[in-house]
Amino acid sequence: MSDSRPLLFALGPSRTFGERVADGLGISLSEHEERDFEDGEHKSRPLVNVRSRDVFVVQSLYGDPGQSANDKLCRLLFFIGALKDASAARVTAVLPYLCYARKDRKTKPRDPVTTRYLAALLEAVGTDRVLTMDVHNLAAFQNAFRCRTDHLEARKLFVDYFAPLLRDTPATVISPDIGGVKRAEAFRAALSKATGEEVASAFLEKHRSAGVVSGETLVGEVGGKVAVIVDDMISTGTTMLRAAKACRAQGARTVYVAAAHGLFVGQANRVVADDSFERVVVTDSVPPFRLDPGVVRDKLVVLGAAALFAEAIERIHGGGSVVGLLDG
Amino acid sequence: MSDSRPLLFALGPSRTFGERVADGLGISLSEHEERDFEDGEHKSRPLVNVRSRDVFVVQSLYGDPGQSANDKLCRLLFFIGALKDASAARVTAVLPYLCYARKDRKTKPRDPVTTRYLAALLEAVGTDRVLTMDVHNLAAFQNAFRCRTDHLEARKLFVDYFAPLLRDTPATVISPDIGGVKRAEAFRAALSKATGEEVASAFLEKHRSAGVVSGETLVGEVGGKVAVIVDDMISTGTTMLRAAKACRAQGARTVYVAAAHGLFVGQANRVVADDSFERVVVTDSVPPFRLDPGVVRDKLVVLGAAALFAEAIERIHGGGSVVGLLDG
Amino acid sequence: MSDSRPLLFALGPSRTFGERVADGLGISLSEHEERDFEDGEHKSRPLVNVRSRDVFVVQSLYGDPGQSANDKLCRLLFFIGALKDASAARVTAVLPYLCYARKDRKTKPRDPVTTRYLAALLEAVGTDRVLTMDVHNLAAFQNAFRCRTDHLEARKLFVDYFAPLLRDTPATVISPDIGGVKRAEAFRAALSKATGEEVASAFLEKHRSAGVVSGETLVGEVGGKVAVIVDDMISTGTTMLRAAKACRAQGARTVYVAAAHGLFVGQANRVVADDSFERVVVTDSVPPFRLDPGVVRDKLVVLGAAALFAEAIERIHGGGSVVGLLDG
Amino acid sequence: MSDSRPLLFALGPSRTFGERVADGLGISLSEHEERDFEDGEHKSRPLVNVRSRDVFVVQSLYGDPGQSANDKLCRLLFFIGALKDASAARVTAVLPYLCYARKDRKTKPRDPVTTRYLAALLEAVGTDRVLTMDVHNLAAFQNAFRCRTDHLEARKLFVDYFAPLLRDTPATVISPDIGGVKRAEAFRAALSKATGEEVASAFLEKHRSAGVVSGETLVGEVGGKVAVIVDDMISTGTTMLRAAKACRAQGARTVYVAAAHGLFVGQANRVVADDSFERVVVTDSVPPFRLDPGVVRDKLVVLGAAALFAEAIERIHGGGSVVGLLDG
Amino acid sequence: MSDSRPLLFALGPSRTFGERVADGLGISLSEHEERDFEDGEHKSRPLVNVRSRDVFVVQSLYGDPGQSANDKLCRLLFFIGALKDASAARVTAVLPYLCYARKDRKTKPRDPVTTRYLAALLEAVGTDRVLTMDVHNLAAFQNAFRCRTDHLEARKLFVDYFAPLLRDTPATVISPDIGGVKRAEAFRAALSKATGEEVASAFLEKHRSAGVVSGETLVGEVGGKVAVIVDDMISTGTTMLRAAKACRAQGARTVYVAAAHGLFVGQANRVVADDSFERVVVTDSVPPFRLDPGVVRDKLVVLGAAALFAEAIERIHGGGSVVGLLDG
Amino acid sequence: MSDSRPLLFALGPSRTFGERVADGLGISLSEHEERDFEDGEHKSRPLVNVRSRDVFVVQSLYGDPGQSANDKLCRLLFFIGALKDASAARVTAVLPYLCYARKDRKTKPRDPVTTRYLAALLEAVGTDRVLTMDVHNLAAFQNAFRCRTDHLEARKLFVDYFAPLLRDTPATVISPDIGGVKRAEAFRAALSKATGEEVASAFLEKHRSAGVVSGETLVGEVGGKVAVIVDDMISTGTTMLRAAKACRAQGARTVYVAAAHGLFVGQANRVVADDSFERVVVTDSVPPFRLDPGVVRDKLVVLGAAALFAEAIERIHGGGSVVGLLDG
Repeated sequence: MSDSRPLLFALGPSRTFGERVADGLGISLSEHEERDFEDGEHKSRPLVNVRSRDVFVVQSLYGDPGQSANDKLCRLLFFIGALKDASAARVTAVLPYLCYARKDRKTKPRDPVTTRYLAALLEAVGTDRVLTMDVHNLAAFQNAFRCRTDHLEARKLFVDYFAPLLRDTPATVISPDIGGVKRAEAFRAALSKATGEEVASAFLEKHRSAGVVSGETLVGEVGGKVAVIVDDMISTGTTMLRAAKACRAQGARTVYVAAAHGLFVGQANRVVADDSFERVVVTDSVPPFRLDPGVVRDKLVVLGAAALFAEAIERIHGGGSVVGLLDG
Repeated sequence: MSDSRPLLFALGPSRTFGERVADGLGISLSEHEERDFEDGEHKSRPLVNVRSRDVFVVQSLYGDPGQSANDKLCRLLFFIGALKDASAARVTAVLPYLCYARKDRKTKPRDPVTTRYLAALLEAVGTDRVLTMDVHNLAAFQNAFRCRTDHLEARKLFVDYFAPLLRDTPATVISPDIGGVKRAEAFRAALSKATGEEVASAFLEKHRSAGVVSGETLVGEVGGKVAVIVDDMISTGTTMLRAAKACRAQGARTVYVAAAHGLFVGQANRVVADDSFERVVVTDSVPPFRLDPGVVRDKLVVLGAAALFAEAIERIHGGGSVVGLLDG
Repeated sequence: MSDSRPLLFALGPSRTFGERVADGLGISLSEHEERDFEDGEHKSRPLVNVRSRDVFVVQSLYGDPGQSANDKLCRLLFFIGALKDASAARVTAVLPYLCYARKDRKTKPRDPVTTRYLAALLEAVGTDRVLTMDVHNLAAFQNAFRCRTDHLEARKLFVDYFAPLLRDTPATVISPDIGGVKRAEAFRAALSKATGEEVASAFLEKHRSAGVVSGETLVGEVGGKVAVIVDDMISTGTTMLRAAKACRAQGARTVYVAAAHGLFVGQANRVVADDSFERVVVTDSVPPFRLDPGVVRDKLVVLGAAALFAEAIERIHGGGSVVGLLDG
Repeated sequence: MSDSRPLLFALGPSRTFGERVADGLGISLSEHEERDFEDGEHKSRPLVNVRSRDVFVVQSLYGDPGQSANDKLCRLLFFIGALKDASAARVTAVLPYLCYARKDRKTKPRDPVTTRYLAALLEAVGTDRVLTMDVHNLAAFQNAFRCRTDHLEARKLFVDYFAPLLRDTPATVISPDIGGVKRAEAFRAALSKATGEEVASAFLEKHRSAGVVSGETLVGEVGGKVAVIVDDMISTGTTMLRAAKACRAQGARTVYVAAAHGLFVGQANRVVADDSFERVVVTDSVPPFRLDPGVVRDKLVVLGAAALFAEAIERIHGGGSVVGLLDG
Repeated sequence: MSDSRPLLFALGPSRTFGERVADGLGISLSEHEERDFEDGEHKSRPLVNVRSRDVFVVQSLYGDPGQSANDKLCRLLFFIGALKDASAARVTAVLPYLCYARKDRKTKPRDPVTTRYLAALLEAVGTDRVLTMDVHNLAAFQNAFRCRTDHLEARKLFVDYFAPLLRDTPATVISPDIGGVKRAEAFRAALSKATGEEVASAFLEKHRSAGVVSGETLVGEVGGKVAVIVDDMISTGTTMLRAAKACRAQGARTVYVAAAHGLFVGQANRVVADDSFERVVVTDSVPPFRLDPGVVRDKLVVLGAAALFAEAIERIHGGGSVVGLLDG
Repeated sequence: MSDSRPLLFALGPSRTFGERVADGLGISLSEHEERDFEDGEHKSRPLVNVRSRDVFVVQSLYGDPGQSANDKLCRLLFFIGALKDASAARVTAVLPYLCYARKDRKTKPRDPVTTRYLAALLEAVGTDRVLTMDVHNLAAFQNAFRCRTDHLEARKLFVDYFAPLLRDTPATVISPDIGGVKRAEAFRAALSKATGEEVASAFLEKHRSAGVVSGETLVGEVGGKVAVIVDDMISTGTTMLRAAKACRAQGARTVYVAAAHGLFVGQANRVVADDSFERVVVTDSVPPFRLDPGVVRDKLVVLGAAALFAEAIERIHGGGSVVGLLDG
């Protein structure tokens, strides 16, 4: 945009992540005011001059006990409105976790197409760009937004984590369902390249009987291998757990799980603690606030994604290509 | 719009109010699905065919323990998006209480102009009209929205309530601050007309010393009269309480308080129970969920606004004029 | 929309399909002029008054020797512009085959998101609605369009065709790749319901060696059964042929192929004629102009989709629900 | 915007004001052609290259005998259209006086919300920003415009003028009606700060009898003090005169009047000349063309606002904050 | 639009024309308030309920001593804004004379393209349709507007007037310049058809010497014939006068002049009175207020266009075709 | 836009022209991928990083045997969409030949206004500017586009070519019809200035008998002179041939023909070869692919327009004025 450095704001609970991104950029988070009123409304505004500046706002759109996902979304929308009113040259919404990405199509009559409404809302307050990571359905996301978008993938972080672990170890990348086979294949290819070994692939397929899911089959070989199950997110974790058990049943030596976003709702504490897994690896796009640290201590690995976002912001600001970031 | 009847939906906690509006229209609320997921996202959709229909959606945008105002706003936005996608001919957002109506201007540098963003968001999902009641700043509201709007006033409800009480009783309408003098005057005029007696008016004015508010003066006569303090909303109620005490100090016989929207945050239980008041009169645009029924039983009067909304919807649907509704 | 009947136009080579739709509606195609000039430009205009009418325009967006897909798209866009200028109340683009539906995401840097551009172009000339059938990626389609859309599926036509053939015969529905498993499952369920027998399911999965596809495995049982391979479209047909050969190799008694759109490019004549297939079943969304009738006479079945479109148009025009059309 | 200086144009009668602004910026007004035709139409165009430049256009939107306010508005709109067509990078409308700012809400059925239409019209020709001063209703103004706005206040000019006059003199700032109390309070605070003395405040309040205004009361103390009555504009001046007489009746030593915009319509000559006032102080946002210089010579003080606008333009051009300008 | 009758408003000096249109429609003009304030601003609003109605507003956009063309344009824009805010279903601007129609292109660097700005302004306040007559450049007009337009031509009125006069008389239609040859030819053809005689055509062509116009030649035969010079408008009339003199010099028996719009600026009184003309025929799209009735009494013929507009409005309202109106 | 150089792309058959423009700018064409699929769809994308760059795309929109004009238009639209998605700062469509420029108005009921749709389509994919040359109707073009436009004229190229030929030779510039008289006059004036001799002018006028064109007259003197017939384009060339024959019949010594765009459809080979002409001069906006080089070798002169476009792009990029380019 210009010679000056970008400005970075981070809202509410995303302040921690935002500070890490700011560190990566060698700047400080810009200050803003964020007040909650007793009647449930709030007000926020930048405390520094943003005229003609290239502004980035971090808000990870997961719900937590303090603020629902909807609440965070509104706060983001109103804050972006205030930035544009205050004459920011360009505002990029930085969304480590993008909510409603699974509400991407009508599956029943009159279903909402929530991703599209999300796009319309962000555009309505003047958002110029959206930067996010590992959305559930990339095609839906890219079609929904008419403002510019950049899409990061945690794959590179997982490769950096797993490649040393898997050197000289036969491994298989597993998709826990058919919808994730493409993601798993991209990860498998990157991992093969990084380790110099040919990593295998497999996936789980549901059985149906009279139209009802009655079981799953693991398609592919995992016997005697290290299994790395990969998905975009972990919600309750039961999908992952079923996949892990299937791998163990087929003779996998060790089972790892990797997902960009760890929501860990419901019985996730119990799931993460299950013996089927060696490790559950996620990024810090969503902090594991629902998990009991005592329970998951030795099982959960949280990889930092802030440096990846910082590098993407640096390139967006400077007109560089974000492409190279995807596989390092 | 057409020969057919309007369709009316009501979201979440506004269902009760919506049912009263439906009764007024002689129809049933249309069914919709509204599901909450463990990860904090939700999904809602109409369960009936809305193609080519004139649709009204009730959502009162106050925050309550179950859903914040932001949360309700998002739910409304996504539901309207779904209605438009499902080919509703026209969608009117029916908002008994409109949130953020006091965030209507920049008072500090880079303040948000939240009412304008609210308008942009409602328009972005395809809202055709907005119907609301007693917004804080009517000019700000009417300028913010580029879609059609209709604005109701609770004044008529208050006149119907107070006129019988005040017959043959000298009364004064009081504005608790200078900003509300116009509203109080309109109420005074309507009350005079209804009672056939000339009702007086008064207001409170703040003293300042070195720029700080140091006290208030009651401008106008209340001695020996029934005082009716009127405002658009009661938040903590302290403004009302100060006004009531001033009226009593000046010799008012009895003090009533009337406000369209009763939010009753903070110490409002104590305020409502205070001896200074005879009655605190509000509408059901916001249910008094924060008050302890035991404490406020004999003090709080909640007037139903649903019939007023039903009549407005009937006229909007039929192409009639909403104007006549304002003073009966 | 109104008491009057809808108006239906059909452009260029879609005239035949349009006439069938008109028959289904009990109306005649409305006349239009469509002239080509020597310099490669054209001009078209409606020849009847369209003021305040509910207008539908049929243009199936496949390329043929006379007009490329781009050519047909431009003709559609300019004709819709003319209809709106001529004061049509509503214009619905009826697209039995929607081009560029597979260009739905960026797979390489700076890839176009062509489905989104298509949506923006249709909206730019004033298209009010889009009605199409079996798009490649439903989520991408629904997110790309901000005007209203309706999406039909050929599944019902296939069920009507296959159900009598499969009565008392064990059958399996096969998806030729992982991406089509959901479509195959919906077909399997509908077929089971129609035949009263439990139809099985299977799919093909690619093997990779060093990241390269080296073969395919058929996951599921087809031995001794009738295999019905189902997909959204047949392009060269090689995917279908590989699937059919795999089914035969696994002991399938007979192999049928069903796809909504038969493009039949490249070596498709040879493919269709291959002994592996009993029948290749498509709809008339794309006429089989690239096939040699002599060669494919006994193999190709073209089901008429016009009645389905006529029924959808009737419901859109009358405000009825299109949902019921999907499975009959 | 860039390294180059801003370009400044001034239309018709605003040329004088524009030249003062240009002086403040150390530049010359850019030349333009502005021709009137016998049939009442006109044509204007910039005479210098504006490609990629940051352009400001001065047009104060008061009506004068040569051009009505509507006429000036149209000329501004068409000239901005021409600037955008000529590839100006950014066009800011500089409006010392903004017309129709009092038409900010519906007070009767079907009233226009003219400020909002004004905003829509300025945006329709491509206006990027609006810079104005002391609009009647700030909230209405900020909600009406969706393009960027900056709002100046003449308060600082008044403080600079009055502070030396009032040193060691007890003074009161008076609002002539209840609607202006906030403006008066801001002025009072700034004046107190500038003089180092606590300035008092007061305001006038209308009496009503049977709903009709029957008189006014001065609320606050002015006895023995210098009274400075402050408002956003002087139209006929009768409001100001009534306020001045009330102050004199209450024993004010001297009465000053200050208003950003002096329209002076109707009997204003007589009003300004009235003995009740010591001085009438306005800015040059509207030249006092309706006043007779002979009559008002010793009473009227016109403060130059051009330097304030020049400084605001400098900051807008350079990305600086305009906030600091408000109170110096 | 609906079963109900259209509503028709007419602003300011267009009230007379509007009443004639209302007569043609068998309705009364709807009432509105139109107030002018001393400061040069105005306010107007409909006085009847316009919800869901099909509304037409007559405003002929010529400048007159009371209101400039710009003034009338603003009044139209603000009134249309008020109609849309008041929930009119559709608003059609009825503009017997459209101002700025000759400002249709850049002829010098940075010229405005005023017709396009006019279109953008009308659309910005929500105008749904524009109905006008004989614009200067039809292609420019049709390209400028993105809302719907209908274009009437006074040709039919002229044919009705001249056909009886010219029966059995050899006549020639003359265009006063090359730009009007198409218009003249259409008139000639219609006149031939109406009289049953072959009417001839001619036009004037400018001579240039060293790039400067030095004279004109009449191309075509007028000797011994009745000459009817036709143009879209008469401004000063000098073009018409030159053409008439040329016709007389070439032996024309009688010279008539016909133009849709008679602006008659400058020396037009003298021009109209000139002996060269038998009659000057215009419509009442612009009343001949600049002419001295005493001087032009026997020369000026003003044809009523209101019935033509009434018929067009009837057809627009009813969904009929406006085409047939052009030549009867 | 910035310090960096512009990026230039050229699509399909416009690559040759694009390379010449690139040469003029001292840069290389930027690489892009452009693939055609068997089913008639295509995909194209830039192969270089375009973030924050000032991008120009050359696509001359004439139809040729490989791609129809519609096809080229779609390819341009989709490629511009991809450039904007890839974060180009500004995209200018460079269209040496603009298709559909003659479809600029309704001449029959319900005719399309194709130039306007073209504008809407280009804007819908995010085109920021359009640069073209010698459009058929400049007013229609300038009104149709709401994005910025620049319009070049080949006149300067023709002057450079003809001035040396005509030195000391009496010459006349002829318009082949009345619509082109303005263009011819501009050329005549420029030619006079360049040669220092007064060039004459003439034009052809159609005779009509019973409304049918029955012949043409040459208005003006060509006897003994060199005649240069000028038009915006040559389609079949018959208009030009008729004009040339008329010139010869009137005694013209030599006849040249000049037109910006040479489409040469139909019998153009025969026309160009006709003895009536000395030379047919066009630019390379459309390559003469329909002509037989053997036949036209000595008659056809193709002037390069690329340098003119390069200079215009340089100025647009640098914020310079394009005006000076028109007459050198």
